[in-house]
Amino acid sequence: MTGRGRYGDAMHQPLDSTAPFAPALAAINSRVDEGLRTDAFFAAINPAWLRDAVLAYPRRGGKRLRPALTLWCCGLAGGDPERAWPAALAVELYHNWTLIHDDIIDGDATRRGLPSCHILLEQAAAAQLPEMSSARRERFGRDQAILAGDILHGWSVAVLARLSGAVGQALVGRLASRVTPLLISGEAQDVEYAYRAVVRPAEIWRMMFRKTGVLLQFAAEAGAMIGAGTTDPLHPAPRRLGRMARQAGIAFQLRDDWLGLFGDEATLGKPAGSDLREGKQTLLFTTALAGLEAPGRQRLLQLSGRPDLSPDELDEARALVRHSRAEAVLRRREERLIQAARAALLTFPDTPWRRLLADWLRFVCERTY
Amino acid sequence: MTGRGRYGDAMHQPLDSTAPFAPALAAINSRVDEGLRTDAFFAAINPAWLRDAVLAYPRRGGKRLRPALTLWCCGLAGGDPERAWPAALAVELYHNWTLIHDDIIDGDATRRGLPSCHILLEQAAAAQLPEMSSARRERFGRDQAILAGDILHGWSVAVLARLSGAVGQALVGRLASRVTPLLISGEAQDVEYAYRAVVRPAEIWRMMFRKTGVLLQFAAEAGAMIGAGTTDPLHPAPRRLGRMARQAGIAFQLRDDWLGLFGDEATLGKPAGSDLREGKQTLLFTTALAGLEAPGRQRLLQLSGRPDLSPDELDEARALVRHSRAEAVLRRREERLIQAARAALLTFPDTPWRRLLADWLRFVCERTY
Repeated sequence: MTGRGRYGDAMHQPLDSTAPFAPALAAINSRVDEGLRTDAFFAAINPAWLRDAVLAYPRRGGKRLRPALTLWCCGLAGGDPERAWPAALAVELYHNWTLIHDDIIDGDATRRGLPSCHILLEQAAAAQLPEMSSARRERFGRDQAILAGDILHGWSVAVLARLSGAVGQALVGRLASRVTPLLISGEAQDVEYAYRAVVRPAEIWRMMFRKTGVLLQFAAEAGAMIGAGTTDPLHPAPRRLGRMARQAGIAFQLRDDWLGLFGDEATLGKPAGSDLREGKQTLLFTTALAGLEAPGRQRLLQLSGRPDLSPDELDEARALVRHSRAEAVLRRREERLIQAARAALLTFPDTPWRRLLADWLRFVCERTY
Repeated sequence: MTGRGRYGDAMHQPLDSTAPFAPALAAINSRVDEGLRTDAFFAAINPAWLRDAVLAYPRRGGKRLRPALTLWCCGLAGGDPERAWPAALAVELYHNWTLIHDDIIDGDATRRGLPSCHILLEQAAAAQLPEMSSARRERFGRDQAILAGDILHGWSVAVLARLSGAVGQALVGRLASRVTPLLISGEAQDVEYAYRAVVRPAEIWRMMFRKTGVLLQFAAEAGAMIGAGTTDPLHPAPRRLGRMARQAGIAFQLRDDWLGLFGDEATLGKPAGSDLREGKQTLLFTTALAGLEAPGRQRLLQLSGRPDLSPDELDEARALVRHSRAEAVLRRREERLIQAARAALLTFPDTPWRRLLADWLRFVCERTY
């Protein structure tokens, strides 16, 4: 499945539409890797350690759910998914550049189990300029990571611009003029909310739509616009599939919040209640606050942002969230989102692409890990 | 000259090609301002203080030499400059987003005499979240300014993507796949060199080409490609005008370096020798080091990076640079660049556009302030 030779060859290998979900996703993963490994863009990046930093996240894999969405929506909208490869790759690169800047801002030291981009660049500084102090090294890593993210941003646009014709042009315009201001505004709000004592559920809701929903919507729209050969994102196929992807993304976030408090540690892979311990403003937390009387609200606020929370206190917080009815409210919202997304998918004829997308939806929305 | 109403109207006001340089530049400045003031893009940015931060630099004016270059190159290549307005605006916005990230990286507190973007955002935090500590405020300003730059980057692409047809698409591809990796690599090298003891003149030369030359080249190419109706940057008009602009940009930098050491403080507006006091790795400095015997080299290195340099020591540094022949070498290079740029311009027929561009060249390369 991994082609040899140039990027262009890899881009035109057939995608086997009869494949069930997991092997189809694995095949996409291989082809994304191959596309990245042989792309001409990164040759222009200098010095070598900056190039390595730009390539680090895209080459670390991940589930590649976004490119899969683009390709399969293209198929479902009646097009040959091969033609959607530049869009699929662009969406994946776009997602990755936002992660680089996110990790700088959040001060996260790891990403997918490996050093985050600014840490990699700190390490490069240590190797290149060993006499540098650790404070200067940290600064150097951060500064270079800002630039690595900027280059990756450019790369995603460069790949999308390879789509020829009016549809390609419409997609470049939509990515830059809709996705960027909304998604980055969402990130800016997420940063701001961490500094604020009180955040309303409606604010978190809007921020989630921006941070998670907008790019997934674009990934689906892009595929559907290419598949249907339309420059209009309001054409039925991109409109319905874009909405489906956005709903799935928000349902995913709601599930994520819920699992973070009520999920099983063993399947979760991280301590339950960590969002609460970090004092994170999740929709579950802010909805619970809004639904409690003053004493309960005060108690939940006391329990939040405390790294040393005991198991009994965690149980107390869970009871308060249940009592606030936030758990029930948000699980119902999540269910409605998933049902709406499924219903949107079922308006399309039953093809292998629809089956793959139904599996995609199940994978995104029904995970318990 | 400033149109009312929507962006689209302002974009199609006639540019008076009989106007001499200064009024023509002022007219472009007004129209850039008008275009920015009425553009639909920034409406999607939230919260309001983030929107203000994104708009701050583009609305501060500046000489608008890049949009003028794009418009006049379009005219010279035989097209109606009105059609090049999206490219002209995109180049100006692109330049401004790189300034936001530059200012964060360099820790510059001002830009064009006003607070730089991250300082503006620190001030916004102080107004919005008064209980925040000053360290957290600084961090907040920096984080939000990274995002403001990202949004402005998207804006420049969004505006360029409004150019319809194959030429527009070619320009989006060229901006993203050539300008971005080269320009940002140049910035990364500039950062790296500040940490290194020895930098070779050839490295500075390459970095200057990237940081200054590449975007100016694109500004001219974009106008010429639109004017000539070609998607090929190697078509004679964009190739020759792009090269002219790149040469002018590098000559400008060389002049800047020279004025920084030998120029007149009164006309310069900043203390002579400030590059030397800051220990900046300019081409003049590294060429001087490379041209001196060991004792002179050692002495010049001693004199560099010392904020308390006396007038006598500054004169001593000047004498060393003169003795190294670096001054003569670089002034000769500068002359050759300007002559080549002028010769390229003279291969075009004598039109009002050529006269405007000749003035542009004079303005960029012969300034003594």
